[in-house]
Amino acid sequence: MSSHHIVRDDQEPALIIANGAACHPELLGQLLEWSPLVIVLDSAIERVLELGIKVDVLLGDFDRGFDPEIYKTTQYPIEIVHTPDQEKTDLEKAFDYLISRNIPAVNVVWATGRRADHTITNLTNIVRYRDLLKIVILDDHSKIFLLPQKFEKWYPATTPISLIPIGTVSGIFSKNLTYSLENDTLTMGYRTGSSNNVAQDGLVTITHTKGDLLLMECFD
Amino acid sequence: MSSHHIVRDDQEPALIIANGAACHPELLGQLLEWSPLVIVLDSAIERVLELGIKVDVLLGDFDRGFDPEIYKTTQYPIEIVHTPDQEKTDLEKAFDYLISRNIPAVNVVWATGRRADHTITNLTNIVRYRDLLKIVILDDHSKIFLLPQKFEKWYPATTPISLIPIGTVSGIFSKNLTYSLENDTLTMGYRTGSSNNVAQDGLVTITHTKGDLLLMECFD
Repeated sequence: MSSHHIVRDDQEPALIIANGAACHPELLGQLLEWSPLVIVLDSAIERVLELGIKVDVLLGDFDRGFDPEIYKTTQYPIEIVHTPDQEKTDLEKAFDYLISRNIPAVNVVWATGRRADHTITNLTNIVRYRDLLKIVILDDHSKIFLLPQKFEKWYPATTPISLIPIGTVSGIFSKNLTYSLENDTLTMGYRTGSSNNVAQDGLVTITHTKGDLLLMECFD
Repeated sequence: MSSHHIVRDDQEPALIIANGAACHPELLGQLLEWSPLVIVLDSAIERVLELGIKVDVLLGDFDRGFDPEIYKTTQYPIEIVHTPDQEKTDLEKAFDYLISRNIPAVNVVWATGRRADHTITNLTNIVRYRDLLKIVILDDHSKIFLLPQKFEKWYPATTPISLIPIGTVSGIFSKNLTYSLENDTLTMGYRTGSSNNVAQDGLVTITHTKGDLLLMECFD
């Protein structure tokens, strides 16, 4: 049994490994360093175990002729959570599971890449968990999260920042971004705040009054 | 000079090679087979030329210390289109270029993967070109396009079909999808039509009255 089963603080963000494209092992290693609760979605378990990662929870609808029972012994004491509900994605079910355990925050990897429908659904569905769970989605080029109505964070100059409205977002103001927003409205598909960046070393402030606004820190 | 400079019909879809993750060479080969007009975005030209592809147009803001002039001789008779406008993405500028040449349709590859902000912007910004340009975005797992208010196409049973609303889409009806839509409303982030599929071999009909609805044919 790995040490992360012994020391655990449920206030640390959990880690969900979804079923999209794998990220660089270094990113995964950094996220595993703090011994989070590790949840793996469905058949991604095969790719995860190949990496020698100890998994706490395996969750999915297991609808593709995939038998999770074999992991009960080989990965003891793994918890298997069968979630047959077809109205939700496995990722949403994993969020629901964390909320039911009162875990306040989660990092998510392998949620992007491969199928575009899964990528766009995974990225945009986090908005409905506002106030329920603090979610950060990471891949090798991106760090994505939902903004509270007032957001403030220190960034170095030139950090790429993209603001992606899920639907329409209004009353947006920014401080310390190169392309400043002044009571602006952004609408997905028509006017987005993609490819902005931090003007100078220091606090960036972004506020908005209405709608769901994602912040993406991305780099090539 | 490759033969595709001699025989050309501008009614064939053009091909834009964007600057995201490369697709499988076989997909690229299929799209090049009909000798389309090939437009490459900005520094992707380096990766494209390594594949031995003849490029007709190189378009971009060339803002990263990248000198397109060297290709004027090495890739003669390539057309270099410098588009410094910072209000639009290079992909949108390429769409504008095609519209200015009265080319009615385009396939787009390398527009997904890598940076999540570019992926989501590229996929969702196609909605503003409704009635101007028929756009299809393809990668190794996905084929994506904007639906007209009435859409009909023959599909084999079990083809995965995802319906992704850009904002809110209302009055949606479907025929021959497993999860049927009956005057439904879909809202990005809250209720999407991801992971549906074709019920049986035959025509699929999808109609909607209001909003921008993307169809994604995706597979693992």
